Amino acid sequence: MSSPDVLWRDPHHDGSSWCTEPSNPDPGATVRLRVLVPRGPDGEPGATEVSARVVRDGEPVLLAATPEPGPEGPAGVWWAVDVVVHNPVTPYRFLLTGPPGSAAGGYAWLNGTGVHRREVTDEADFRLVAHPAVPDWVADAVVYQVFPDRFGRSGAADARPVPEWAEPADWDDPVVHEGPSTPLQFFGGDLPGVTEHLDHLVGLGATVLYLTPFFPSRSNHRYDATTFDVVDPALGGDEALVELLDAAHARGLRVVGDLTTNHTGDQHEWFRTAVADPASPEHGFYYFEDEDEGGGAGPGYACWLGVTSLPKLDHASVELRRRFYDGPDSVVARWLRLGLDGWRIDVANMTGRHRDVDLNHEVARTLVRTARETRPDAWVLAEHGHDATRDLQVGDGWHGTMDYAGFTRPVWTWLSAGESLGRTFFGQPARNPSVPGQEVVAALREVHAAMPWRAQAASTLHLDSHDIARFRTAVGGGGSGGISPAGRDRHLVGLAAQFSLPGVPSVFAGDEIGLTGRDGEHARTPFPWDRPHCWDEETLTAYRAWIALRAAHPALRRGGLRWISSGPDWFTFVRGHREEAVLVHVARGSHEPLALPLSVLGATGADDVVAVSPAPGQVSGSVPHDAPDSFVLRAGGPGSGVWRLPVS
Amino acid sequence: MSSPDVLWRDPHHDGSSWCTEPSNPDPGATVRLRVLVPRGPDGEPGATEVSARVVRDGEPVLLAATPEPGPEGPAGVWWAVDVVVHNPVTPYRFLLTGPPGSAAGGYAWLNGTGVHRREVTDEADFRLVAHPAVPDWVADAVVYQVFPDRFGRSGAADARPVPEWAEPADWDDPVVHEGPSTPLQFFGGDLPGVTEHLDHLVGLGATVLYLTPFFPSRSNHRYDATTFDVVDPALGGDEALVELLDAAHARGLRVVGDLTTNHTGDQHEWFRTAVADPASPEHGFYYFEDEDEGGGAGPGYACWLGVTSLPKLDHASVELRRRFYDGPDSVVARWLRLGLDGWRIDVANMTGRHRDVDLNHEVARTLVRTARETRPDAWVLAEHGHDATRDLQVGDGWHGTMDYAGFTRPVWTWLSAGESLGRTFFGQPARNPSVPGQEVVAALREVHAAMPWRAQAASTLHLDSHDIARFRTAVGGGGSGGISPAGRDRHLVGLAAQFSLPGVPSVFAGDEIGLTGRDGEHARTPFPWDRPHCWDEETLTAYRAWIALRAAHPALRRGGLRWISSGPDWFTFVRGHREEAVLVHVARGSHEPLALPLSVLGATGADDVVAVSPAPGQVSGSVPHDAPDSFVLRAGGPGSGVWRLPVS
Repeated sequence: MSSPDVLWRDPHHDGSSWCTEPSNPDPGATVRLRVLVPRGPDGEPGATEVSARVVRDGEPVLLAATPEPGPEGPAGVWWAVDVVVHNPVTPYRFLLTGPPGSAAGGYAWLNGTGVHRREVTDEADFRLVAHPAVPDWVADAVVYQVFPDRFGRSGAADARPVPEWAEPADWDDPVVHEGPSTPLQFFGGDLPGVTEHLDHLVGLGATVLYLTPFFPSRSNHRYDATTFDVVDPALGGDEALVELLDAAHARGLRVVGDLTTNHTGDQHEWFRTAVADPASPEHGFYYFEDEDEGGGAGPGYACWLGVTSLPKLDHASVELRRRFYDGPDSVVARWLRLGLDGWRIDVANMTGRHRDVDLNHEVARTLVRTARETRPDAWVLAEHGHDATRDLQVGDGWHGTMDYAGFTRPVWTWLSAGESLGRTFFGQPARNPSVPGQEVVAALREVHAAMPWRAQAASTLHLDSHDIARFRTAVGGGGSGGISPAGRDRHLVGLAAQFSLPGVPSVFAGDEIGLTGRDGEHARTPFPWDRPHCWDEETLTAYRAWIALRAAHPALRRGGLRWISSGPDWFTFVRGHREEAVLVHVARGSHEPLALPLSVLGATGADDVVAVSPAPGQVSGSVPHDAPDSFVLRAGGPGSGVWRLPVS
Repeated sequence: MSSPDVLWRDPHHDGSSWCTEPSNPDPGATVRLRVLVPRGPDGEPGATEVSARVVRDGEPVLLAATPEPGPEGPAGVWWAVDVVVHNPVTPYRFLLTGPPGSAAGGYAWLNGTGVHRREVTDEADFRLVAHPAVPDWVADAVVYQVFPDRFGRSGAADARPVPEWAEPADWDDPVVHEGPSTPLQFFGGDLPGVTEHLDHLVGLGATVLYLTPFFPSRSNHRYDATTFDVVDPALGGDEALVELLDAAHARGLRVVGDLTTNHTGDQHEWFRTAVADPASPEHGFYYFEDEDEGGGAGPGYACWLGVTSLPKLDHASVELRRRFYDGPDSVVARWLRLGLDGWRIDVANMTGRHRDVDLNHEVARTLVRTARETRPDAWVLAEHGHDATRDLQVGDGWHGTMDYAGFTRPVWTWLSAGESLGRTFFGQPARNPSVPGQEVVAALREVHAAMPWRAQAASTLHLDSHDIARFRTAVGGGGSGGISPAGRDRHLVGLAAQFSLPGVPSVFAGDEIGLTGRDGEHARTPFPWDRPHCWDEETLTAYRAWIALRAAHPALRRGGLRWISSGPDWFTFVRGHREEAVLVHVARGSHEPLALPLSVLGATGADDVVAVSPAPGQVSGSVPHDAPDSFVLRAGGPGSGVWRLPVS
């Protein structure tokens, strides 16, 4: 796949409100599905017949679409068909027929991965979901992720005793990222330290603070909770969280917590009771059994990836569910009532899955229902280091995922500087062989076609997190000789993708000033408040600009996604919305000029395409005098551009 | 996609016993997975590192593979890795790394759809299944499908009263296939009439008789049963079935029945009781509710696709399950005890699915468990007119499906004569726009990658059935002017695909003599025993030859599937097995000579490749004197060829 992909002649649909109305229907509602069918290069119709193939109770039916009334726009004909919502999740795709050479090419299926002139499975079907909607505010969110031990350390921290497991470090010490001290190195960041720096988030434009765990534990990452009932005293305790929530809410920021549903620490009060008293209800919270694999004797209980300090929870226990996430007395409900705006669920992919038991979807449904019943605007975000699509297709589980599979990893493979980081991407190689843009777009489409649009829109787009190398390092900007301009350029190309594709951008604290790190542990850098000369101000300016651009454009926050073109070194798409549309071009390097017919953009003249880019780099777009029907995109190097278009 | 696809340099794995040992493991077993990595065109290694990415409890882990000991064969290096079976269904794929230009191309995933040099979802992962195995005999089966009213009419039929709903017809009358008489036209075929003609099946080489329903009903198709307790007296009653089973078993034939689990007829004893007595258990067997869609008043109960004579069953009823398929007193168990060898499940795709209820997998699991407990060698085959993959991935449900999506429909689109048959393929257009072979192979791969290998192997390959047009007509051989040689040629190309691809070939009675029919109803032709001059003897000879070839070659019955090449007018593959391997080439028309390196076939000289074709048509293969390292495939027109290869 070395030649550029011309995607702009393809008929278009996505599950967004651009093409689907209402896009969050109730059961029994009638939904209008719309398909944009562009004309061919010589103005011929793209299709002569369009139908929706809708699966009801497991059986497909064909429903004929008709062209929408009114004058045809330059971009093509919108066909529409009304569908009654019969099942909670309705898979559908479109069948187009037309003369050979037309967009339909005689016969074509249109599904989430694009146009196919052959038979396909239902996997990439679009999906109408009639379960309760994702909270509306999520569409507008920009998340800022804080790892509490490493973000801000208040004056009060000095007065607190150091936890007995901890190995204290000074704020500017190098991060230990290998060996037994890795989880024990304790910088002493605390919640008042987060509160002190909330204005940094506001200044950046972030709208959500996501805190990795704040429960007591025996490590700096706190994913080994010893209780879910209180905030770690080393972080300032419950009072500090309440103050942080108040301060955040006063600034219009929401706050999301982090809950480990797959396991607890082995010093968790539940596990200690379970071990001490086999007759206790807590004994039923865990899997006490011998591991029969690997040959050796195990610890006598199931645990996370063989780490004996992290015993795995058995969600068959009704009492566990009640205490943890089923109903108003649960951990999930109590902290939401206290003021949390949502939960990020750690290791959601493994939760409830053990050998021949798979309770994952039941856990997700129950937890999300409890969250919604506690506060209707609670967001529940699942962690999957890999493919989450199966868990999102059910439609009434997790609202979204941390989209490593559908964003982070493909973008890494595109923008890599070719350096191997070893096995640092959730245990898989972080080698990034510079995959061409067409393949990257194919990967994005494959992943997102397999989840409902609303789940994609409620998933987070990360260039990195506390679990993988810093993006700046992954793209070759991690050297010790100061800021690498080439690394920064690629970082900002990734940033453009992060803030222009559908989903919720999530910034790991420090990315915005160009911090580096070779793996997840190494990336957990204390924020260098005291060393502003180390900040990459150019990167920070770009973050502020992108966040502001996104805030200003509903199409970037809530628009559908129509792919226009991809080549080895670029990809191009339209974010379409009933209120506005924008064209986005992202280039990792220079490429031959790309001429798009103006009509493809719904435009009839140069005035219809207005640049709004915050940080274009070496990308430009214009309507040439000698080709007034074209919009020509040029890149002399890495960069990106955004242009406002007429509404199609 | 107009250029031919060279697939023979791709690394290969499938879930068959060729590559997976054991391929039907028990939980906790260790399974060896093998990957064949061909060398590059200049003899360079295809990969330097191979790992299996195995999903355990929802989390992927990477396990390193190593080259198998022993001398390397000409086809390449087999890498192997041992995996312990942790979950009942284990998704896995392979990560290959190697120098740019190698098969791994720097970095590549190998999954069920082939090699991808980008990120992919888990959808096309291979799947290890540790649930009880499919009965072993299924791998060797050739099914012959009989529609009882239209196959054979015994002398005893004249003595029986005509059912009161029936409109009697003479055996040679034209089939009514439109209008209200369609389900009522009654030719009077019966089970003794089937018994009389069992030697035809034996002479053909079929090993399984599949009977569409034999229960009493009010139509010629009998999918509207009035009871499941007795055989329709119009077919000869229970006694006739016992005689048929005895006669079939005496000839080494197995017999599979047909059960409608989605609905019954509205004259079924259960439904009559349900309507008459709302307090009866039977009332809970159906959904008594108003349909809220379509605007008009419904019949007051849910039914199949709005057909009020077919009320839909509600599988939430424990009593329904007990009577129907849960346990030894059930309908499913009783007829198996009487001697049936399995069940084909009608409308399996909709069974148990209604609005917000989806009990499909529970029904499938329970029914299959009952069948297995009644007789361990019972086969349960599900009807899906469309994509069945979701229902087969669970691994402990239906053994296989009628593979319309993964075989029939793609083959129709390849071999079509371009004529539109209208909406006759399960409600979707039967227009067949002559899709190129590369796209057809992509469709076959996409569907089968989404099901476990064992499910593909236990699914039936149909050129047609009683529900769609006859294949002969679909490929342009349906004219009224006698036998069309072009139609026959394409029919025999389809036959080659049917008998050489993995799966269980299933012949609808009459296909083997070239019968025609424009839609499913029209295809239900009374078998013209009395008019042998109308039989296409050339077609019959080809069927006998293919069935015999399949019987003679374990690779065709039990081998894995390695794709070698595809072009617009051909596809080529190897069926590999530990005992033998064969090369298959299928061409719909003439094409440029295709030169395969001999080494790709594991061969070192011309003597290693031995033709065994029964009906090559215009296809030939040879090692040219001037290119002794190549095997050159030629087609001057439609045809196929099979060659025995060395074991790789």
